[in-house]
Amino acid sequence: MIVVMKVGSPETEINRISQEFSDWGLTPEKIVGKHKVVIGLVGETASLDPLQIQEISPWIETVLRVEQPFKRASLEFHHGEYSDVVVPTPAGVVTFGKNHPVVLVAGPCSVENEEMIIETARRVKAAGAKFLRGGAYKPRTSPYAFQGHGESALGLLAAAREATGLGIITEVMDTADLEKIAEVADVVQVGARNMQNFSLLKKVGAQPKPVLLKRGMSATISEWLMAAEYILAAGNPNVILCERGIRTFDREYARNTLDLAVLPVLRHLTHLPIMIDPSHGTGKAEYVPTMAMASVAAGCDSLMIEVHPNPAKALSDGPQSLTPAAFDELVPQLAVIGRAVKRWWDVPVLTH
Amino acid sequence: MIVVMKVGSPETEINRISQEFSDWGLTPEKIVGKHKVVIGLVGETASLDPLQIQEISPWIETVLRVEQPFKRASLEFHHGEYSDVVVPTPAGVVTFGKNHPVVLVAGPCSVENEEMIIETARRVKAAGAKFLRGGAYKPRTSPYAFQGHGESALGLLAAAREATGLGIITEVMDTADLEKIAEVADVVQVGARNMQNFSLLKKVGAQPKPVLLKRGMSATISEWLMAAEYILAAGNPNVILCERGIRTFDREYARNTLDLAVLPVLRHLTHLPIMIDPSHGTGKAEYVPTMAMASVAAGCDSLMIEVHPNPAKALSDGPQSLTPAAFDELVPQLAVIGRAVKRWWDVPVLTH
Amino acid sequence: MIVVMKVGSPETEINRISQEFSDWGLTPEKIVGKHKVVIGLVGETASLDPLQIQEISPWIETVLRVEQPFKRASLEFHHGEYSDVVVPTPAGVVTFGKNHPVVLVAGPCSVENEEMIIETARRVKAAGAKFLRGGAYKPRTSPYAFQGHGESALGLLAAAREATGLGIITEVMDTADLEKIAEVADVVQVGARNMQNFSLLKKVGAQPKPVLLKRGMSATISEWLMAAEYILAAGNPNVILCERGIRTFDREYARNTLDLAVLPVLRHLTHLPIMIDPSHGTGKAEYVPTMAMASVAAGCDSLMIEVHPNPAKALSDGPQSLTPAAFDELVPQLAVIGRAVKRWWDVPVLTH
Amino acid sequence: MIVVMKVGSPETEINRISQEFSDWGLTPEKIVGKHKVVIGLVGETASLDPLQIQEISPWIETVLRVEQPFKRASLEFHHGEYSDVVVPTPAGVVTFGKNHPVVLVAGPCSVENEEMIIETARRVKAAGAKFLRGGAYKPRTSPYAFQGHGESALGLLAAAREATGLGIITEVMDTADLEKIAEVADVVQVGARNMQNFSLLKKVGAQPKPVLLKRGMSATISEWLMAAEYILAAGNPNVILCERGIRTFDREYARNTLDLAVLPVLRHLTHLPIMIDPSHGTGKAEYVPTMAMASVAAGCDSLMIEVHPNPAKALSDGPQSLTPAAFDELVPQLAVIGRAVKRWWDVPVLTH
Repeated sequence: MIVVMKVGSPETEINRISQEFSDWGLTPEKIVGKHKVVIGLVGETASLDPLQIQEISPWIETVLRVEQPFKRASLEFHHGEYSDVVVPTPAGVVTFGKNHPVVLVAGPCSVENEEMIIETARRVKAAGAKFLRGGAYKPRTSPYAFQGHGESALGLLAAAREATGLGIITEVMDTADLEKIAEVADVVQVGARNMQNFSLLKKVGAQPKPVLLKRGMSATISEWLMAAEYILAAGNPNVILCERGIRTFDREYARNTLDLAVLPVLRHLTHLPIMIDPSHGTGKAEYVPTMAMASVAAGCDSLMIEVHPNPAKALSDGPQSLTPAAFDELVPQLAVIGRAVKRWWDVPVLTH
Repeated sequence: MIVVMKVGSPETEINRISQEFSDWGLTPEKIVGKHKVVIGLVGETASLDPLQIQEISPWIETVLRVEQPFKRASLEFHHGEYSDVVVPTPAGVVTFGKNHPVVLVAGPCSVENEEMIIETARRVKAAGAKFLRGGAYKPRTSPYAFQGHGESALGLLAAAREATGLGIITEVMDTADLEKIAEVADVVQVGARNMQNFSLLKKVGAQPKPVLLKRGMSATISEWLMAAEYILAAGNPNVILCERGIRTFDREYARNTLDLAVLPVLRHLTHLPIMIDPSHGTGKAEYVPTMAMASVAAGCDSLMIEVHPNPAKALSDGPQSLTPAAFDELVPQLAVIGRAVKRWWDVPVLTH
Repeated sequence: MIVVMKVGSPETEINRISQEFSDWGLTPEKIVGKHKVVIGLVGETASLDPLQIQEISPWIETVLRVEQPFKRASLEFHHGEYSDVVVPTPAGVVTFGKNHPVVLVAGPCSVENEEMIIETARRVKAAGAKFLRGGAYKPRTSPYAFQGHGESALGLLAAAREATGLGIITEVMDTADLEKIAEVADVVQVGARNMQNFSLLKKVGAQPKPVLLKRGMSATISEWLMAAEYILAAGNPNVILCERGIRTFDREYARNTLDLAVLPVLRHLTHLPIMIDPSHGTGKAEYVPTMAMASVAAGCDSLMIEVHPNPAKALSDGPQSLTPAAFDELVPQLAVIGRAVKRWWDVPVLTH
Repeated sequence: MIVVMKVGSPETEINRISQEFSDWGLTPEKIVGKHKVVIGLVGETASLDPLQIQEISPWIETVLRVEQPFKRASLEFHHGEYSDVVVPTPAGVVTFGKNHPVVLVAGPCSVENEEMIIETARRVKAAGAKFLRGGAYKPRTSPYAFQGHGESALGLLAAAREATGLGIITEVMDTADLEKIAEVADVVQVGARNMQNFSLLKKVGAQPKPVLLKRGMSATISEWLMAAEYILAAGNPNVILCERGIRTFDREYARNTLDLAVLPVLRHLTHLPIMIDPSHGTGKAEYVPTMAMASVAAGCDSLMIEVHPNPAKALSDGPQSLTPAAFDELVPQLAVIGRAVKRWWDVPVLTH
């Protein structure tokens, strides 16, 4: 932590501040510049808040952080080793991680009825997916829009799991629903709008199922990793990060701006596995294949793609869903890129 | 709702779509343009989702909304009359609304101990505040930062209420805590990070205390009003909107960008009372007085200002807090503007 | 300048770097932290580029600037004194500055014909304006939109100046036009889209007329002040900064987000006078009066307001223009606030 | 164009407006909705400005555009056919376009001296580049930073062209320099900061060399295509679009946010070839290879990559430059992806 003093700060004030830092168990090191004095703080500074330090004296101009604020999520603190998140599913163990094939997650925005969810599960499994996504509880901008079938949809997800062997990923929106969701889900999802719902983060961190943490739509990388830190600090080491598009000044043609460039940045900062969601990331089905291919080339560990048997009749997010047929067509294209970057498994024979 | 068809859309498809709209109980009106056909939908369209309509046919280029998506929050649906939110406090009834004096809300970011909260309450009351703000549960970016004293802090707020007669505004972060917070609070606050925590919105909408709804840091005006709509639709008519700074590309000198210009926009769209929070809005105490004065000139109904007896020792948000002395100095300056725009009450004599 | 080394940087590399800084005439001061080494650079560092320093070694993690990059625009380097920009006009000298009354600038987006510009000039002068704004050369998003009457419009501005005694403010878009514009204009305007047209900045800095520098629509405060620095460094000390709205994620109801909170920030950073343009800042005439009043309360030195005799027939920017009658009505409202903050002159009697 | 009237608009006003549209040669078609009346305008509306239409009556609530504002840049108006930009270079003709191999453009940010530019040119050519980029005139945030060697650097670029046969791409910042730049350059670049310098756009549109148009850092897709429209409308059909990163709320780890997802959007909107610049797009050399690979997988027509023989000593933009050795290593990786998507040529044997 570096404390920059204002021009003309009195010597006595600098000494008083230095003493205060010493009292905190830190070692202050003073540098007298041409115009300004700066104080370097040596010691255990990672959990200090720069804003709070600033308040010690009105003569402090600014406080600059040298250490990253996240620890458990940090690649550096993990000795430079990338983690695997290993998830048992009925059809076998699936591993998310930098040294494993790209894991495909597919399915509809929301679970609508038994037939559609089982049909979709069968189709995406046949095409190569390992996980079925599908919402029982849906965050919707309007109170008048379909809010998900809730608990009954959880039963349908369990049925699809049993019928196909796919793992289940579904979202939790309220701490009160966590227990029953975690009974069905193989991975519990925290959605973009709840990325800084700290009560929820603490509670998903205190249960055993792996957590998929979507990036908030205007969350900085640092805030996102701090949200992961909440889960890790609560005791759950299995966190997967999912980029799903950020909010920028231009929303005329795409609903969000897919920040694919976050991928190499995260690889330098964190050991956690990285998923990309080009469906929410772009908001339009016609842009999904291109961005899915780019994601694989950029080295993502997993892809989440919305697939709906009849997007025109979808109760939510229709415009960004692929049909099962379009997904069938996309997977072999992804495989070509995936093999080129050595991140693909043998493509299953399509038998539906 | 206006449906724009792609260039070259087949006549049969346009007819099929029109029939589908008729089946929904809408009246489609077709306009044949030079290059494109558009279909106007007449009927009850406010609750329709444009994205979903788009999915009816691949020949639909775009769907444009003519009606606002919010109803209960809308000025138009409220016959152009602005609402009052009337809050009983121990010291008397306080009214938030366009035709009433500016209501001052002040206090620390978080409740730290009995002495500080009661001392702060006394000082801000003497200066002219009608409500004490103070957090028992605090949303913090880092899991390692002070998270609020929780339930015990609620007791201290109750004590401050009793000691001073001020109304209490405090934040709820988890549906599980709502009941005990609503027992103490005169106004329940939903924070910026939970603006789209729809479970929470439904539950604060189903209890009787007025709700202060802060704008999410990248929420559009439309999303903000839809969040208010959740509360209103759940049965609670007493919602106050609070602008607290949005996230933009420049965060070097101010933590957020206070979007004061939202004030005239909201006045055209909604009947709900409007509060401005220049403390979070700028993130620095030295910018607060200027923006508080501008807010009063712009016609806000209420101001929320952070005041802490010793900002340097604050457990959270110190840099943006005024001292009680600075608040004492600010209120008469606000009064000068407030009287000029005829939105002030008689300034109380400072007797502390 | 603070150089932060990566964890595990070799001692020899730290010594090599330190030697290189010494060779540049700087004094490196090393602080050995618990995890990282940082090097403080003492000496003349204001003109160094942090990005370039970073390239000296792959072991450098980041470089933090302690000094502001701007000098001539800085309040600190100006010994804490605010500057006045004094402009002679036919009707007398007008001063822009923190210790002077608010200067009103008004007029149409573009000069359309002699009658309209002279009529508008008369009306805004009668209401209290000191300067007429009006574009001869117009930056337009579309090549098919009206591009301004160019040179002939300059003649009309000169006629309006002569007829009314108002000073003239008009925009230069091309270095080739500067000379003829500077002959007519009392203040030369650099528009938002050209804020980083460095060729243009150098050239307006090398001519004697004061310059109005509009903020680019996504320019940081720092970039804006560096653009001012270009003009100041080229020899022209008379620069007025004009905030005109920035680009954010929400553009549904207002064209831009007027960043009024930049006002107190600029007051801490720079000595240059500050103008606010609520017309471009909001993009809608109905929001202009509210934000104009807020600007005066916030302490702006000048206001620029679009006024057009017939906004419905304007060749550009009609929706954000006030009618002369609306401007007549607004000025006395501004005066009420202006007098409250002691920044107003005696309001002239309206005699038209 | 769709005109939405406010609730309660008087019949007489609707008739008056309709008459006015008829007078303009348009056919107004009225739809009477449940709450509002909308008027569809049939005829030649592409060049109309919605903001201007809105001014016709205070009873108009909003005006919605149905047609795109760009024509010559539009894929639709180009009958769905993608264009090629064919550039003769000393080493042969190079074609930019969707049905051609990815064109590699490489070189330093600025031309520093003869040895460095010729050495760099030789290395990037050997690795597979077809064009050398290098700045003679440099837009720099600070007036105290290196501004480019100007005219003398143009001579060095000509020498590098002759020595290697590479085409030259270099930036024009001032209309006054265009002629001498166009003598040396095979492609003239308009930089991000000048994307809406309309004087410059008109002038590069009126000369015969192809133009590389970089996206402004907060330009919407629509504004970018309108900037291209300026060049096309001035008579120059050879425009290449270059995405180079946009400005968002997070700039802590990457200088810009590379908006790779603009690629599929542009493919639906425009026939013009698309280049991606991952060097400026991310601002850090370590992120460039990943994003270059993603760009090829996403189907870009060209890549622009900064290469400098000694990034640590670069006079500008060092941190984002690859060394020639890193570029040598990258190209075969790109080739693997490029062949997978069938957009690569035979990789040349590296012989340096």
